[in-house]
Amino acid sequence: MAAPSLDLTATSLDLTRALCDIDSVSGNETPLADAIEAAVRAHPHLEVTRLGDTVVARTDLGRERRVVMAGHIDTVPINDNLPTRDAVVDGEPHLWGRGTVDMKAGVAVQLKLAAELSDPAVDLTWIWYDHEEVSAELNGLRLLAAARPELMQGDFAILGEPSNGTIEGGCNGTLRVEVRTRGVRAHSARAWAGHNAIHDAAEVLQRLRDNQPGEVEVDGLAYREGLNAVMIAGGVAGNVIPDECVVAVNYRFAPSRSLEEATARMTELFAGFEVEVVDAAAGARPGLDAPLAQEFIAAVGVEPTPKYGWTDVARFSSLGIPAVNFGPGDPTKAHADDESVPVAQIEHVEQSLRAWLSRR
Amino acid sequence: MAAPSLDLTATSLDLTRALCDIDSVSGNETPLADAIEAAVRAHPHLEVTRLGDTVVARTDLGRERRVVMAGHIDTVPINDNLPTRDAVVDGEPHLWGRGTVDMKAGVAVQLKLAAELSDPAVDLTWIWYDHEEVSAELNGLRLLAAARPELMQGDFAILGEPSNGTIEGGCNGTLRVEVRTRGVRAHSARAWAGHNAIHDAAEVLQRLRDNQPGEVEVDGLAYREGLNAVMIAGGVAGNVIPDECVVAVNYRFAPSRSLEEATARMTELFAGFEVEVVDAAAGARPGLDAPLAQEFIAAVGVEPTPKYGWTDVARFSSLGIPAVNFGPGDPTKAHADDESVPVAQIEHVEQSLRAWLSRR
Repeated sequence: MAAPSLDLTATSLDLTRALCDIDSVSGNETPLADAIEAAVRAHPHLEVTRLGDTVVARTDLGRERRVVMAGHIDTVPINDNLPTRDAVVDGEPHLWGRGTVDMKAGVAVQLKLAAELSDPAVDLTWIWYDHEEVSAELNGLRLLAAARPELMQGDFAILGEPSNGTIEGGCNGTLRVEVRTRGVRAHSARAWAGHNAIHDAAEVLQRLRDNQPGEVEVDGLAYREGLNAVMIAGGVAGNVIPDECVVAVNYRFAPSRSLEEATARMTELFAGFEVEVVDAAAGARPGLDAPLAQEFIAAVGVEPTPKYGWTDVARFSSLGIPAVNFGPGDPTKAHADDESVPVAQIEHVEQSLRAWLSRR
Repeated sequence: MAAPSLDLTATSLDLTRALCDIDSVSGNETPLADAIEAAVRAHPHLEVTRLGDTVVARTDLGRERRVVMAGHIDTVPINDNLPTRDAVVDGEPHLWGRGTVDMKAGVAVQLKLAAELSDPAVDLTWIWYDHEEVSAELNGLRLLAAARPELMQGDFAILGEPSNGTIEGGCNGTLRVEVRTRGVRAHSARAWAGHNAIHDAAEVLQRLRDNQPGEVEVDGLAYREGLNAVMIAGGVAGNVIPDECVVAVNYRFAPSRSLEEATARMTELFAGFEVEVVDAAAGARPGLDAPLAQEFIAAVGVEPTPKYGWTDVARFSSLGIPAVNFGPGDPTKAHADDESVPVAQIEHVEQSLRAWLSRR
């Protein structure tokens, strides 16, 4: 079977369709990465590097500043939602199918502009990477940052994740801790011989209720924090006083706090209980005060909003590179089986990026 | 293989040994029931009825009053603790092995006295029944009460369950309810779009802490009640606001309260929450004010104490027959793999019962 090939001069809508119809569920990105690599290697203004199934294409025009544009090429599993088809949603033309929102429309715009912009206003680094939808250990952008950090360098980064065509800055961090109470087992007919660990968890839940966080302003954007029990478990049998209760707490914290500060906050809030960190990812400051960010916001002409879910912008942020999300598609439709992207948003994102990146 | 036979003129210690060495784990009581039936049928002063693996032996001497003596003949599973052997515990001679405490020593004393007391002070009904250690539906005493209630009638009942040779009156009732909170799911990155059902459970646990019950005096005995969460469960995933939390609550209530009163108490305590009864058994009043009970207490010469665990005395109580537990062995050793009964307690129980039941 011939390897699929991509026509980067097609419209970004047709290119989205072509990208979606090449199955690239996480772990199966190689055919699509091959097609992308072949397509960009055809353009002499791009210097191409392949690392696993991650493809990096860079201009090297000696511009003063460099912008990094990145997008993942994998999708969550297909569920009877391929091949793509044209659809009309709320009276507007859409492209329907797995990957249309998350995030092949964003990748299509990037590929089209990578081929087209041979003389951009800034130097450009394009990164298309694998394994974003699965465990962080496999994430292509993480592996690139570890193996070839120089390829990620730039003055500003734009991740093409769906943002409804608006600019979403930074992202909250996320921390998951287990808060544990311990008691002493006894037969419930003689409860006084034991100590009830579930009763002690009342205090844990009450502190959560009494300490609901609010908004934190970071670089001009208001980040709403979240502090929630996401799981509770305790109990041995219907006639036994329970000797253990575990409350799993998820803290979504504003990007102005470090992971260490967020952890300290939880340790302090649950003072007197056992607290164990089970999962943690730092947030990303929006970095909208960076000059390139200001220029980009002015060019697109929209009011930036905070991103609540964690995205790979945090990887740029941790390298000191201001980064935002800007892509077509409604983020709440990501992973939905009726995923579909408005055609007008694809065009809006393409035009906005072209206008800003073109040499004036 | 010859059916095992029992010598009811042996000492109650030797008879305990013989009973234990006939395996009668719940569901396998037939050989032992056969041996018991054959042994008591040899005594013309006893009228014998067999119902399943339950054996009833009655005198019919026209006495003014009748005492019912009952004991179950099944045991929990054997765990390398048969055959029985002699042992010394804390310097005292014991008989060690499965069933020695729960409750073949009690049954041995009953069998010996059933054969011996052909001219007792009161009419006697002896009941040896099956399936006490498993689901209540199979319980031989329950089936007897349903099929032949006239065979259970009497003015006073003594269950030979282990009580360390003291008189334990009545028993607490037990009620298990599930208290449920409901919320609305949302991604934990946007928690404000949902409603956290686990947080709402704080109030359920706090009410449990604030309403710990105390002692209730019933017929001169102080019953300590218990109110405990025995299980808690809630949560969908580490990044989802949970939409349900369930707290299972076990209320051990004094026998002066009816099941209905106990249930109403829970409904009232958890007003505002969904409350569902999942398990319930009424308690048994000690009935120590009954004349025969008073005589028995005086004869044994010990201060009665309340029984906390639920026992089959409640089945007599529900028929209006005052009932107590009186048997050899430490109840906390029941079901233990190192179950062993003090020989002196077997003799004490035998002598106390003989003295009280013999015609003076």
